[in-house]
Amino acid sequence: MQWSPGGDAVRIIDQRRLPGEVVERDLRSLHDGCDAIYTLAVRGAPAIGVAAAMSLVTSLQDWAGDDRHAFDVTLESHARALAAVRPTAVNLAWAIARMMARAKATSGPPTQVLGVLRVEATAILNEDRAMCDAIGANGVEFVPDGTRVLTHCNAGALATAGIGTALAPVYAAHAAGRRVHVVAGETRPLLQGSRLTAWELGRAGIPVRLITDGMAASLMQSGRVDLVLVGADRIAANGDVANKIGTYSIAVAAHHHGIPFVVCAPWSTVDPQTATGGAIAIEMRDGSEVRTIAGLTVSPDGTDVWNPAFDITPSALVTAIVTDRGVHRAPFAFV
Amino acid sequence: MQWSPGGDAVRIIDQRRLPGEVVERDLRSLHDGCDAIYTLAVRGAPAIGVAAAMSLVTSLQDWAGDDRHAFDVTLESHARALAAVRPTAVNLAWAIARMMARAKATSGPPTQVLGVLRVEATAILNEDRAMCDAIGANGVEFVPDGTRVLTHCNAGALATAGIGTALAPVYAAHAAGRRVHVVAGETRPLLQGSRLTAWELGRAGIPVRLITDGMAASLMQSGRVDLVLVGADRIAANGDVANKIGTYSIAVAAHHHGIPFVVCAPWSTVDPQTATGGAIAIEMRDGSEVRTIAGLTVSPDGTDVWNPAFDITPSALVTAIVTDRGVHRAPFAFV
Repeated sequence: MQWSPGGDAVRIIDQRRLPGEVVERDLRSLHDGCDAIYTLAVRGAPAIGVAAAMSLVTSLQDWAGDDRHAFDVTLESHARALAAVRPTAVNLAWAIARMMARAKATSGPPTQVLGVLRVEATAILNEDRAMCDAIGANGVEFVPDGTRVLTHCNAGALATAGIGTALAPVYAAHAAGRRVHVVAGETRPLLQGSRLTAWELGRAGIPVRLITDGMAASLMQSGRVDLVLVGADRIAANGDVANKIGTYSIAVAAHHHGIPFVVCAPWSTVDPQTATGGAIAIEMRDGSEVRTIAGLTVSPDGTDVWNPAFDITPSALVTAIVTDRGVHRAPFAFV
Repeated sequence: MQWSPGGDAVRIIDQRRLPGEVVERDLRSLHDGCDAIYTLAVRGAPAIGVAAAMSLVTSLQDWAGDDRHAFDVTLESHARALAAVRPTAVNLAWAIARMMARAKATSGPPTQVLGVLRVEATAILNEDRAMCDAIGANGVEFVPDGTRVLTHCNAGALATAGIGTALAPVYAAHAAGRRVHVVAGETRPLLQGSRLTAWELGRAGIPVRLITDGMAASLMQSGRVDLVLVGADRIAANGDVANKIGTYSIAVAAHHHGIPFVVCAPWSTVDPQTATGGAIAIEMRDGSEVRTIAGLTVSPDGTDVWNPAFDITPSALVTAIVTDRGVHRAPFAFV
């Protein structure tokens, strides 16, 4: 993710088109930003936060006039619209709140505020890249030479502005010359594992193997997994982790087989205000995502579906949480 | 599965067309029978055996003349052709061998042998139905009023000539007026859960809800599952169970949540010659089943894939095994 060369748009790789096509898309309007986040053209908690902050700027860049009050009202409405697109995403709310605080602290006409907001969004972008590097540096201790890693969904470079979160220790180990092999769970319903993780690791020259989600436990049983690395959408004060649906199933299986289960996420994902995972609202998504695959109907019309976007892994199943601040181990008590 | 009204064909529902269309197909010629089994228009171990036995009869029904030797030569060639379509399907070989033994034990002209074979095929059909009914009667104790069942793959009516194996207790409970709700795991890679189980339960008026395989543990965590019912492809002497890939993951999750995990299968699936699950060879299938869905590519070309057809659930995770002979509980010691 980056500013477009002219600086008037947020340039993303449209993740809905991968792996078939690599399509870059420029987000300009409020609708562009909200739509890209809602339709998962941009996805991954950190990437969503960066994209929202940058979109907030581009959505207002054509503002004309000096009426600061009118500008503030529009800014506020754009901020609310962006923050509401994916309510479980704490990074989204965090990035928007940071932008709004900056705007409030800035006096002067709209053009001046917009300039300050552009600097702030760029700072969020660059901090995201630095955050990924720090997670990689902190987490690489879990990835000695020869490690066979199982991951879920995509918490890689495509989910951030940098080298990813869950995959940051993999990229760090690879960069350090260690052999590392990754198994990617395909991650139904939206197949981020097969579409995105397999694609980005393959492009980086890191050996990757694909499985369906139901195979993970059997793969562990067969002795082929040394470490599980996953990301997080939100982490409660007690270490409970909200992440892509299917993560909890892997955590239970890893626990059963005595395999380390390590969560890698930005410190901003930690939410001390949320006491436990039970307090995290889980977004329920449309049943058509399960009834169909890439537009192809695979079940009877109108079949009832249960389609939560996330699940909660209790901290008791979590070996360690790696953030840009360091490696955190049980008992977790984030403040 | 049944004889067509005129008795001159094997009437099946073409499972390749489900759930989009309900197409009944009449198998008459040798080619019809072989093609239906090879292309998976008929699938499920019990159903394949019944279809092959019945197809052997219809493929010869137009035989004219009294030359018993010529008839026997043709019968033998048809039997070999049918048995060779899916060489690893134990029930197919068993059904054809039973038909041939009956033919050899019968004297008289071809028409007389054909009459005996029709009776034998009908017996195989009816015994399969009775086997299903017995599993239902034996297993219904696990399905009291209001039970919420999780199942995997399709071990239902479509996989047998009767009311299925894993789903037999569900049908039996429904017939007894009990409320029963089924959650079907979609069962990647081939989606038998979404394509077949959701369809047949919906048609029977039994409430069914669809999930992706990665959601099963989370569904249990949320308190929405009272019982797991699955089928089996082979059961070892110690109670280890080989079944569709993804079954083991569900068993681990059920164990973690204290939910009964019950396997339903014909007694013929129990193989006392196999001491433990470790002795069961697991068929590895082509990676294209994971890389693509119904011909649609969902991962980068050439991605490495691990695609076992089955997994092994250790008997320690199995609450009970229900067969047509009764309910078997740990410690399992089949002889």
